[in-house]
Amino acid sequence: KMYKIAVLPGDGIGPEITEQALKALKAVAEHFGHEFQFTEALVGGAAYDAVGHPLPKETLDLCYSSDAILLGAVGGDKWADLPPELTPERGALLPLRKLLGLYANLRPAVVFPALANASTLKPEVVEGLDIMVVRELTGGLYFGEKKREDLPDGTVRVTDTLVYTTEEIVRIARLAFELAAKRRKKVTLVDKANVLESSRYWREVVANMAAEYPDIEFNTMYVDNAAMQLVKMPKQFDVIVTDNMFGDILSDQASQLTGSLGMLASASIGGKIGLYEPSHGSAPKYAGLKRANPIATVMSGAMLLRYSFDMEKEAKAIEDAVTEVLKKYRTRDIMEEGLQLVNTDEMGDRIAEQILAG
Amino acid sequence: KMYKIAVLPGDGIGPEITEQALKALKAVAEHFGHEFQFTEALVGGAAYDAVGHPLPKETLDLCYSSDAILLGAVGGDKWADLPPELTPERGALLPLRKLLGLYANLRPAVVFPALANASTLKPEVVEGLDIMVVRELTGGLYFGEKKREDLPDGTVRVTDTLVYTTEEIVRIARLAFELAAKRRKKVTLVDKANVLESSRYWREVVANMAAEYPDIEFNTMYVDNAAMQLVKMPKQFDVIVTDNMFGDILSDQASQLTGSLGMLASASIGGKIGLYEPSHGSAPKYAGLKRANPIATVMSGAMLLRYSFDMEKEAKAIEDAVTEVLKKYRTRDIMEEGLQLVNTDEMGDRIAEQILAG
Ligand SMILES: [Mg+2]
Ligand SMILES: [Mg+2]
Repeated sequence: KMYKIAVLPGDGIGPEITEQALKALKAVAEHFGHEFQFTEALVGGAAYDAVGHPLPKETLDLCYSSDAILLGAVGGDKWADLPPELTPERGALLPLRKLLGLYANLRPAVVFPALANASTLKPEVVEGLDIMVVRELTGGLYFGEKKREDLPDGTVRVTDTLVYTTEEIVRIARLAFELAAKRRKKVTLVDKANVLESSRYWREVVANMAAEYPDIEFNTMYVDNAAMQLVKMPKQFDVIVTDNMFGDILSDQASQLTGSLGMLASASIGGKIGLYEPSHGSAPKYAGLKRANPIATVMSGAMLLRYSFDMEKEAKAIEDAVTEVLKKYRTRDIMEEGLQLVNTDEMGDRIAEQILAG
Repeated sequence: KMYKIAVLPGDGIGPEITEQALKALKAVAEHFGHEFQFTEALVGGAAYDAVGHPLPKETLDLCYSSDAILLGAVGGDKWADLPPELTPERGALLPLRKLLGLYANLRPAVVFPALANASTLKPEVVEGLDIMVVRELTGGLYFGEKKREDLPDGTVRVTDTLVYTTEEIVRIARLAFELAAKRRKKVTLVDKANVLESSRYWREVVANMAAEYPDIEFNTMYVDNAAMQLVKMPKQFDVIVTDNMFGDILSDQASQLTGSLGMLASASIGGKIGLYEPSHGSAPKYAGLKRANPIATVMSGAMLLRYSFDMEKEAKAIEDAVTEVLKKYRTRDIMEEGLQLVNTDEMGDRIAEQILAG
């Protein structure tokens, strides 16, 4: 079978980091005898500059006809003052996720053995950390009705609304349990069930579902306590499942625990076609300098293989290669005394070689 | 002038830690020539057991006729299964805050020099940390309209509502700027203005107010970034002001950064009469064992002096005494090799002596 991958390099450092992920994926294809077809298209500011829209129809068509999407990064000051619907984030990323039905955002927070000292936390607290935050991505407070009302006395009342339906909760929870089954078999639901009605319902639905997974350990935690526990004892977590807003906060907090954001991938899944991208941004000021760390994008490629193509050993081959390469080679952001400094391209080459050698 | 202080020891370790705070306050009275009148009353489970309600009328009357309230802690498994309106938290703390108009929760996260190693973060990251989280306490998502609707197809839709009015935002922001003026003169508004209408309005109101305080540095930060920055570079913050929900999460995250929750005070202010209590709970399993750390309650006494009585040097005297005592004496939770282990009472005595000696 031939697997079609849409490649959207995007803005800033997007093109140069995406290129390294492709090297890794091509090495996997060669090593494991798969056929991947890569097709590039414009997205974000680059697309706006070329054709006047951050998500051109050709790009969208390509995505629809692909098996998975690999994205670099979008955005930059250059396009920040455009009308919202033309900015790279609101005009491309949000509609793309919505059109593809990507309701689940997966954000791994992984500490590589060689990088335990990169964290602001003590090495013994984060060594071996491997958390997967599963964030509901298309509902909740961020997408509810918004109002601004002028009151008779001249003051203002503002309102945001948090809404969830059974179906929205069931599908994200199902995904979290299935994920946990292939990991360390633990799911933590984070909510605020002591005060929010939505949280109380999430807790009912997810606890019910937990009963269908007797071999998965299930617990619940209030969001304020979760924010504390992530600082105090982060290794207690395997899969965290939570709503859009809590997931937004906790996935970023968890990623910062690792101290090396240049290493962290992300996936937006749930629909037929998954979208994979580094969790960091487009870093316009480093664009073209070839000093960006491509590993987050390479690791996004590994997630793509695992979640869209069900290629577990291939995904693992990329992850193992990265672990191995980090013992000797480093980009600037994670450089340490005694190791060899490499640029973006060289890091991609070393990883690809390691995959082929593995 | 005679200052009247209502003393509500509460449940669990509440009585024994409150007693130590009184020792410190009495030492201050003696040393600085003030007159404090302390009157005790029942609250929480202790009140329920004695008279059938967690917030008896006599207690409430005492609070109304006092200049400030010092509270130990309430709650415990023993009362967890009572009807909500009779539990210590919902039946006593929430109504007390509401009746007294306490819309601002102040949560300091302070790392004492002697305890920089107690944190899970590296000492250099948290040494000297001194953050004040100012949380709006009576509005927002936690108090908005809640709904659970059965849909025609048999599924359910749940709703929570986030509402703020101009007045609610103005008063908490004013308080944050006034606080910052007496501290390191920096206010960070945390919101999610890129997606929430309420946040956009908070940002307008608070940014406008910032213009009235030209000598206070003002910045804004999205809540997910704030959760990252608290891990990455927590010392960048002085005063953080934010809504009820974000404040709930960030104040707990910030407190955990210190690694020593037994040290952290809190204040609920905004009305005529302020309420001061440790930010930790009632720890029922340690009740009566005299091993609890009373410092959070002692420090709450210092906040009481500062915010309710405007006694800055007296508050400072307590804080300095604690700093000094920690160089030699420790309760179990913060014990370190080479220092002297003391129990709850002894810690209270050492601090009071130090205030008198200071
Ligand atoms: Mg975020
Ligand atoms: Mg809290």
